[in-house]
Order: sequence, then structure tokens, then C-alpha cells
Amino acid sequence: MEKGWQAHQLRVRYAETDQMGVVYHVNYMNWFEVGRTEWIRSLGIQYRSLEEQGLLLPVVEANIQYQRPARYDDEIAVYTRLDSWTSVRLEFQYEIRRAALSEGLHEEPTGELLVTGSTKHVWVNRQWRPARIDKASPELFQLLERCGRKGDR
Amino acid sequence: MEKGWQAHQLRVRYAETDQMGVVYHVNYMNWFEVGRTEWIRSLGIQYRSLEEQGLLLPVVEANIQYQRPARYDDEIAVYTRLDSWTSVRLEFQYEIRRAALSEGLHEEPTGELLVTGSTKHVWVNRQWRPARIDKASPELFQLLERCGRKGDR
Amino acid sequence: MEKGWQAHQLRVRYAETDQMGVVYHVNYMNWFEVGRTEWIRSLGIQYRSLEEQGLLLPVVEANIQYQRPARYDDEIAVYTRLDSWTSVRLEFQYEIRRAALSEGLHEEPTGELLVTGSTKHVWVNRQWRPARIDKASPELFQLLERCGRKGDR
Amino acid sequence: MEKGWQAHQLRVRYAETDQMGVVYHVNYMNWFEVGRTEWIRSLGIQYRSLEEQGLLLPVVEANIQYQRPARYDDEIAVYTRLDSWTSVRLEFQYEIRRAALSEGLHEEPTGELLVTGSTKHVWVNRQWRPARIDKASPELFQLLERCGRKGDR
Repeated sequence: MEKGWQAHQLRVRYAETDQMGVVYHVNYMNWFEVGRTEWIRSLGIQYRSLEEQGLLLPVVEANIQYQRPARYDDEIAVYTRLDSWTSVRLEFQYEIRRAALSEGLHEEPTGELLVTGSTKHVWVNRQWRPARIDKASPELFQLLERCGRKGDR
Repeated sequence: MEKGWQAHQLRVRYAETDQMGVVYHVNYMNWFEVGRTEWIRSLGIQYRSLEEQGLLLPVVEANIQYQRPARYDDEIAVYTRLDSWTSVRLEFQYEIRRAALSEGLHEEPTGELLVTGSTKHVWVNRQWRPARIDKASPELFQLLERCGRKGDR
Repeated sequence: MEKGWQAHQLRVRYAETDQMGVVYHVNYMNWFEVGRTEWIRSLGIQYRSLEEQGLLLPVVEANIQYQRPARYDDEIAVYTRLDSWTSVRLEFQYEIRRAALSEGLHEEPTGELLVTGSTKHVWVNRQWRPARIDKASPELFQLLERCGRKGDR
Repeated sequence: MEKGWQAHQLRVRYAETDQMGVVYHVNYMNWFEVGRTEWIRSLGIQYRSLEEQGLLLPVVEANIQYQRPARYDDEIAVYTRLDSWTSVRLEFQYEIRRAALSEGLHEEPTGELLVTGSTKHVWVNRQWRPARIDKASPELFQLLERCGRKGDR
């Protein structure tokens, strides 16, 4: 994984619809989370194993913009990329598109744009105290260094 | 709380509907869980504090029958009662009705019947090993003895 | 309902937690939706009846900031107020606090602050075409005029 | 699709866990629904297009047995097969196993068994009145005839 968009394919579940006949607006944020898990996997590590080591990545802020609705059984591409990062925080960007695609790295997202968004995170330990990943996981820190611009703080 | 039905009132959330225009069938089981929490509270204890003591009550079996659908913004009464119990397991019964009611103990459920069901549970410790509540929580064991027939095993 | 915060009380459900032991971050947005439904009810109308008349209020943007996590069985106050509105759009603000409160109108939110956020909406008809509520529902338009500042467009 | 088990692969989402550190018990039933959608697709039709034609398949009863929990990021195989059917109703069986598999038809499920269950359904029209699929969709009726034993009523 380098600087591009990581694509992950999923299909809309019946449980994700609401009585407007479209995906309930909150559920796109679950897909952001799926995109994040897959983005981290594309680095060669599992977010699950980070949590097992005691390194958690809670969300501190999220923003989401809705352009067109997804519908039951649509094939959806969740595009995720790292926006910026430091040793204490991370920010991701997302695009949700209606598209049937190959998984993996993409230069530019394709397909009908449905939803865009971003999430900000901080690293914490099991006691929810701030953690520095250059200390807590130098291996992860090195992997992130290959992924794009490091922020100022 | 003695032998009757414990009623808990809630209102259907938009998030709980699906594109059939009714409550997504799986979500009634979330309401069973809410009913269980409130039934235990009616004994004078909190399920939350049991978990903090290391006594968990996972579901081992559930059954649910659907008669009529609930709709967005309906006022719903969740009726819960203990069906049977021993020192290692519990079984609850539920009725979901469309009704605006006073909370608390009821001899007989009232309101339009929507869904019925039951859940079976076992007590386990934090390592998911079977626990006996007569040993692990004699206080809870005594409270259950007031609630109805004890099963054979 | 006038210009203050409308409070609605709820209790955290087990289904709303995740393996971090706190409320899954996406679920707070479901509570925003509950707050919105109750805010509209406080005007003397039901959002449900607006939808039945063919007036829908989809979300076009949402923002959410996380300060402290809610936990299973916590008593939560969802505070909702209208931020601004015109005949074609609405914006709401929310505060989620840990508090046991009386429902209804409050000058200022109280309780431990957990989450803040906002949502922007547009009115659409059944075909998802923009609707003007001064035309589509003059009664609702009048009610909103009592609720606070009208935006420019 | 003939008489075997149709396998569908998915990965456990963070949103699906609860504070016990495992998949929240209700969420397995969402996977049953995903399995059903894929089973119907394996017949060569989409459940989505049946609904668009006005043929709905609500659940009238569900049963679920829990043996072992699934965990975040586990690879899960959802096995679905038709148990019995007539022109007015259908019954499905499910097995949820921890396994990384090829999608499609399997003689026998493999992988660590986590959950078993079944759902019963009736065909209804848009007004939720019973429908007979031999009349409403002879094409679907023919496809089902290839899938296994037809019940008595």
C-alpha cells in the first residue's frame, strides 16, 4: 500500500436499508470502518493484532456528505486513503461509489459517487491514555512513513 | 419482581426499519435483550454489575415468531418473564405488543400482539467457562428463587 | 418548542456496544436521529405523518465529535436544537450527555458531555425531488418560524 | 444451485462485536439474511427483482443455536440450503462456520461450527396478502422444483 486509494468491494445488505427504500444514512459510516480495516491490512498488518497488543484507534471526529443513495443488493466500492498522520493521530478519507471493481490499490476512484467522508483518530492504550506509535509500534510507524505526508503535530 | 410479566416501553427508531416499510425482523431480538436488562433490573440488580463481577449470561438458543409488523414511531411494549431457571441456566419468554403502557409488573400482557419469542442462556465466567450462580452470586440465586419454578437441571 | 434544547432520555443497549467496551462510535448518530424525531414531535407534529404526506427529510451532511465514550446501561440525554432553516433546508445541533433528566425543553444542556454533532437536511418529495415546505406544508412552515432564525437561502 | 449448501464468505465487522468481545448474538441473523440473498442469486434470480415485481418473502419464524462465538476480523462461511418449500412458503437452514472457502455449492459444510439456525417464510404481495408463487412467478416455481423436496402444504 502506498499513496493511492485502497478499494474494498461489498454488497448492500437488506438489514442496511430503511423505510425510505435506501441505505440508512448512518450505515455508510460502518463501511468507512470496513474500509479502514482493509486499508490497514493492505499495509501488511491487521488492526485486530494491534488491538491485541493494546494499541487502539478510536474515532475522535467524523464528517460525511451524502450525494446519492445506495440501494439493497447494489455492489459498492469503499475507497479509503490516508490523508495525514503523526505519531499520535491519523486521518482517513473515504469515497463510497456504486461500482463492481477489483480489490486493491487504485490511482483514482471510479464508479458513481454516492458518499464522501473523513475520520480523525488518535492512538490510545488499553486504559484509553494517548499512545505514541513511534514508541508503541515502531514497525507500524515505518509502514506509515511509506504512505504519505506526515503532519506537523 | 415476582412471577408476572415485566413491561418496558420503547418507541420504534427510524434506524430499525427496512425497505419493506416495517421493523427489520432481526431487530426485535435487540428488544428482547432490552427486556432482559429491564427484567433483571426489576429484581433490584443490574446486569451490568453482574458482568463487572465476571458473571456473563450469553444466549445459547433463541426462537422468534412473527405475527404482525411494527412500524416507525410505534409505541411498543416489550414484555419479559422468566420461564425457568437452575443454578447454571435461565430461560426467558417475550411478547412484543403495540401498546402505550405503564412500566412495571403486569399480570397479563395487553396491546396488539406482534412478536413472541424465547431465549435460553447459561452463566459463564470471564473465560467463558460455565459458572454456578448459587456459588458465584448467592444474592442473585436468592432473588431468582422468588421468581418462579426452578427447573430440574 | 421554542429556541432551547429539546432533551430526550434513553439508556444504552447492549447491542450498541463494541469490543472496546464502549458504545460503537457510529451508533451515536442513531441517537441524533431519535433526537430529531423527538424535536419534531415537540413542535406538535410527527415526522412519521410528514413522510406519509410525502415530505421526506434526508440527511445531506453530518459531523460528529467524540469526547468521552458512553457505556452499556448508562442513562443518556440526547439534546437537540434547530440551528438554522429555510423553506428548503434545516440544520440541527446535538449534544449527547451522560445524565438522568426530565424530558422536554432545557435552556442549557447539563450532564457530562460525551459527543457533539450536527446534521444538515433538505426537504424532498417521494420522488426525491426538492420540496419547499412553505408550499408543501404551510402549517409546518409556521411552526418553524417560531423556532428561531431563518437562514438566507 | 441444486440440493447442496450454498456458501458465502464474509469477514466480521467491528460494528458487529459487542462488549463481550465477540459478535453480538443478534447479528448472526443478519448473516442468515445475506446467505438467503446469495442462495436465491445462485438460482439465477435476484431477490431484489422479486421485490420489484411485488413478491416479498417476510420471515414468520426463526430459530438459532449458538455453539461458539465469532470474533472481529474472522473469516466466516455462511452456508444456506433450502429445507422444504411449497407454493406459499419456504424454509431455509443455515450453518455459520469459521472458514476461508471458495464461494458456491458445497456438498457438506466445513470449518469450525459456530452457529446453526433456520427461518420460515411466506410469500406475500405488496399489500402483505399471501401470494402463490406458482401463479405469481412460474419461473421461480420451476427453479425451486429443481432444488429439493416440495412439502405437503
